[in-house]
Amino acid sequence: MPTYRIDLAYDGSGFRGYAANAGVRTVQGVLEDALGIVLRRPVDTVVAGRTDAGVHARGQVVSFSLPEEIEPARLLRSLNRLLAPEVVARALAEAPEGFDARRSARWRSYRYCVDDGPVPDPARRWIAWHVPRSLDLPAMDSAAQGFVGEHDFASLCRAVEGGSTVRRVLEAGWQRPGEGRLVYRVTATAFCHQMVRSMVALCVEVGRGRLAAEEVPGILAARDRAAARGVAPPHGLTLWEVGYASS
Amino acid sequence: MPTYRIDLAYDGSGFRGYAANAGVRTVQGVLEDALGIVLRRPVDTVVAGRTDAGVHARGQVVSFSLPEEIEPARLLRSLNRLLAPEVVARALAEAPEGFDARRSARWRSYRYCVDDGPVPDPARRWIAWHVPRSLDLPAMDSAAQGFVGEHDFASLCRAVEGGSTVRRVLEAGWQRPGEGRLVYRVTATAFCHQMVRSMVALCVEVGRGRLAAEEVPGILAARDRAAARGVAPPHGLTLWEVGYASS
Repeated sequence: MPTYRIDLAYDGSGFRGYAANAGVRTVQGVLEDALGIVLRRPVDTVVAGRTDAGVHARGQVVSFSLPEEIEPARLLRSLNRLLAPEVVARALAEAPEGFDARRSARWRSYRYCVDDGPVPDPARRWIAWHVPRSLDLPAMDSAAQGFVGEHDFASLCRAVEGGSTVRRVLEAGWQRPGEGRLVYRVTATAFCHQMVRSMVALCVEVGRGRLAAEEVPGILAARDRAAARGVAPPHGLTLWEVGYASS
Repeated sequence: MPTYRIDLAYDGSGFRGYAANAGVRTVQGVLEDALGIVLRRPVDTVVAGRTDAGVHARGQVVSFSLPEEIEPARLLRSLNRLLAPEVVARALAEAPEGFDARRSARWRSYRYCVDDGPVPDPARRWIAWHVPRSLDLPAMDSAAQGFVGEHDFASLCRAVEGGSTVRRVLEAGWQRPGEGRLVYRVTATAFCHQMVRSMVALCVEVGRGRLAAEEVPGILAARDRAAARGVAPPHGLTLWEVGYASS
């Protein structure tokens, strides 16, 4: 059975998240509907990173297997005619045998945009969280360094019964790409639920001066969700890239 | 009667244009409704540049007069509580006597975003026109130079009976701020209806190689709407800035 890989970008604003869910509009739902229409058979897909309602993707990866070979370039065009511009298949190709978008992934990378100018920019209202005070970038970046390495992120994860909350963060940091704008970039082998948005909320508390960067390791060590500082809104978050052995 | 000036930004996606129009949602409609609620009286406003349905603004200017003085900082906060984040009053201040957002304006500046990468970016679907082929920037910039100066723009304006279509363009040009992205910046003392979007459509034809930059002066000289190459979609356009004698 040939396996295919789709590289997917989407504007999450109009979806109740990635994962298919009866009765609501999801990215997986519209993607599998489109695949079903074009290929004239039901198609089950596997995704690298499930995103929550309102969260966007630039480099999401989806895999699926079919009983026979298809022409990838033609399927790509047909899919985009049905899905674009809200969801866009950026690439579609046959994948190595055994490829599974979720299990084959080595790392995931997210970005989160915070705007800290005095007034929000209407053009960025679906892609950036506006915090109406100037944030302390070096302090936030220092807080983010506390996430790097292998830790139990129970303080920053929505609890899933019986699931481990130990994760390995490869890279985390804040930058200022322009006046009034901050971007958080974080890469981990995997993330638990609400982990990036909990990190961002914590860092913004540091940037506001309500919390010292030095307190972050203690919050992680508490392994207690109540020690966190809430969850940043979903619309600032984008699944940026997923890494595989071959890529 | 004291006169006030509001500097306004908005995401035009959800509006049927700027100008109030019975039965449809417009920027002027929601702004005047909000002013009426806060000030407890009907308020008539004047705008620097009417924008079409789907067109955005970063630096729109609106003026209005009141029978008595109000506190600008307080009105600004109250307005933004009602309007943000879709419409944002970036500033509100008392204006010099006789200030009129439309008649006092010396120039208007617009920007238009065209993305020319192979696939559209869902995050930019409300702010950029996606043209799925690499465009020739120097040729487009050369075409834009043909607009600079005082010309009869009848070829690039939606006809208004009896109205002059002579306008003075102070500056026009294309730049590439990033891979797969182009931005058009144009400043004129005033614009006629659909003028910027008609300029963009013409330049994109040049960028695609369907028209030579040298043919642009002839298209202008024809003073005939039929000589143009259509109108670019509204969502790529933003009213960027309005200039006044004092600013």
